[in-house]
Amino acid sequence: MTGRFPSPPSSDRVRPDVAVVGAGPIGLSIAWRCATRGLRVVVHDPAPGSGASAVAAGMLSPVAEAYFGERQLTELLLASAARWPGFAAELTEVTGVEIGYRTEGTLMVGLTGDDLAEARRLWAYQQGLGLPVTPLRPSELRDHEPALAPRVRGGALAPTDHQVDPRLLVPALRVAAQQAGAVLVPRPVQRLSDVDARVTVVAAGCGAAALTGLPVRPVKGQILRLRAPDGVAPGFRHVIRGYADGEPVYLVPRADGEVVLGATVEERSDTTVTAGAVQRLLRAGVDLLPELAEYDLVEAVAGLRPGTPDNAPILGPLPGRPDVLAATGHHRHGIVLAPITADLIADLVLGGGPDPLLTPLRPERFSARTPGGSSDRSTEGDQWS
Amino acid sequence: MTGRFPSPPSSDRVRPDVAVVGAGPIGLSIAWRCATRGLRVVVHDPAPGSGASAVAAGMLSPVAEAYFGERQLTELLLASAARWPGFAAELTEVTGVEIGYRTEGTLMVGLTGDDLAEARRLWAYQQGLGLPVTPLRPSELRDHEPALAPRVRGGALAPTDHQVDPRLLVPALRVAAQQAGAVLVPRPVQRLSDVDARVTVVAAGCGAAALTGLPVRPVKGQILRLRAPDGVAPGFRHVIRGYADGEPVYLVPRADGEVVLGATVEERSDTTVTAGAVQRLLRAGVDLLPELAEYDLVEAVAGLRPGTPDNAPILGPLPGRPDVLAATGHHRHGIVLAPITADLIADLVLGGGPDPLLTPLRPERFSARTPGGSSDRSTEGDQWS
Repeated sequence: MTGRFPSPPSSDRVRPDVAVVGAGPIGLSIAWRCATRGLRVVVHDPAPGSGASAVAAGMLSPVAEAYFGERQLTELLLASAARWPGFAAELTEVTGVEIGYRTEGTLMVGLTGDDLAEARRLWAYQQGLGLPVTPLRPSELRDHEPALAPRVRGGALAPTDHQVDPRLLVPALRVAAQQAGAVLVPRPVQRLSDVDARVTVVAAGCGAAALTGLPVRPVKGQILRLRAPDGVAPGFRHVIRGYADGEPVYLVPRADGEVVLGATVEERSDTTVTAGAVQRLLRAGVDLLPELAEYDLVEAVAGLRPGTPDNAPILGPLPGRPDVLAATGHHRHGIVLAPITADLIADLVLGGGPDPLLTPLRPERFSARTPGGSSDRSTEGDQWS
Repeated sequence: MTGRFPSPPSSDRVRPDVAVVGAGPIGLSIAWRCATRGLRVVVHDPAPGSGASAVAAGMLSPVAEAYFGERQLTELLLASAARWPGFAAELTEVTGVEIGYRTEGTLMVGLTGDDLAEARRLWAYQQGLGLPVTPLRPSELRDHEPALAPRVRGGALAPTDHQVDPRLLVPALRVAAQQAGAVLVPRPVQRLSDVDARVTVVAAGCGAAALTGLPVRPVKGQILRLRAPDGVAPGFRHVIRGYADGEPVYLVPRADGEVVLGATVEERSDTTVTAGAVQRLLRAGVDLLPELAEYDLVEAVAGLRPGTPDNAPILGPLPGRPDVLAATGHHRHGIVLAPITADLIADLVLGGGPDPLLTPLRPERFSARTPGGSSDRSTEGDQWS
């Protein structure tokens, strides 16, 4: 065990206030926020940061990801993205760790006429919500990113959609949580009854299904990491999202030359990398940004996002178990939702009145399908999928 | 040091008859053949089998690779391929190691009409040489390999073009050479003067350029390894070579589910794997065999073939240095040419009259450009490329 409790001085045998199951970005953010507010925190995870976040691109994109029929989720994403500048600044300040937070904004593009028509429907919806989406003329698009393929038919700018590097973020959160007094226990949790704490927070991603019976299912994503040759920075600065001959794809440039190219969304629970997915991602990426063809392909990897029936996370006490809080089901949004999830859960632990934001996210919205909502069920989430 | 000399019993300090520089398939085959003929053999290599052979697909394809303007090379490839059945049988018999030697033959195909026209020109040339190439009607092609894409326009069978697995072959050759008495020294050779033996054989692949001054240059090849899902064998048995929208590509199925998909031919000396090459190989492979899209992509790797100005290997004594034999420059043909290279070099070491096959392969064919042909030069081969 590492870390320390702020008070009492030697308290390893004192019952923790909070036990967090899962040391991904959600669990560690909760642990950090709880510990800085004076709570005794233990985090259980045999392999911190080894889940979906190790594969994630780290886009903070509430605007570009404002999809039809997900209005409440969009509000949550916007509220969390608004907390990101302060969250990132504080995290870097207390840890001294650079987390790759970048604010150049996101370009949304369509390769063909059909792609552009599809994209424009979405941009109109996003503008209708009052979100900052600025359609660009082709010449303006090239001014923003000269490296885009001449074939790209059109685009729009979402200047407030930013990015962070999840592989830098998670170690920084771990340092911050431990500095604040949280204790990391590198042991898996098989049953909630194995955990002894006043409040248990289940932030175990896909693992939450077996621990709680909640309808969390794995959603496979395959992703590539490329690297600009000769160690230079990529020839583009914005996150680029778009459709390329019907294939949705994104490109996230990092300052060190890395480009993340993703991602598939598959209703599967394996983590194999398939030839067809790699081919489609590369084709779409190279079609949008031809210079990628000369980049090194350094990694091809698959991960499992914790999906839910309504694509929104599950936050709050399990029905009939006020001592067990769910913080899972973040699907493709775990990174952007880390700050608000941490704040909302810390408020709940400290007994504050529940934030109205939580109302549509509470576990009981699935209660019709989880009679009793009892914990410690080993039910798989598949039955709800 | 491992291994032993057949006689005298304790002879570590006896001057070897042969020092082989390089423990790839060429060097090890030479060492095996020389040792079985009673010679004291030492092989120098800090990393046996780590060169081009670790990347090679292992096709034994003198027919499919009989190209315009390479008639002498074709004769050599045919002569060596004819020795492969006996070579493989003997190697497996003396070592007990399975080397993946398969004799289902090779299907040559064209995806589009243009691809087929290009392929038919080559098949006509190969048939004109009297080689066994049988054009197939589309229905016959599907009878041979039902997994081929319906789009594939046509094909031909080269029944005598076989395959072996280089990653099994090299360890088997190492065992065979050591069992026969060869001693492996895991030390690099920087200069030929570091080697003390009656005859030195330079079988160092691309490394031969710096050791001998011969015009051997690196020719980069990128290659992929896929694996059929669920551990089953691939859905095709023949080696498949073809053109897919102008992209030359081959697919080599192994019994254990592996499929080797290759390969680029690039005048470069780096070993990075690039996004564009992977995309083109996968696209061509999936276009020919759609089931590959569902295969796991398990490896993407690049290697450097030892190329020569006329694409033929360089075999025989360096000009003015009868004690130094070159056995390098095998380019894309190192695996198929291993048996004949080993026999020809062993004959030379034992002082037999030079085989007429060697005449066009001797180092002095480049002497106009290597005045003096002296060894121990650190000249790069690039000046001839």
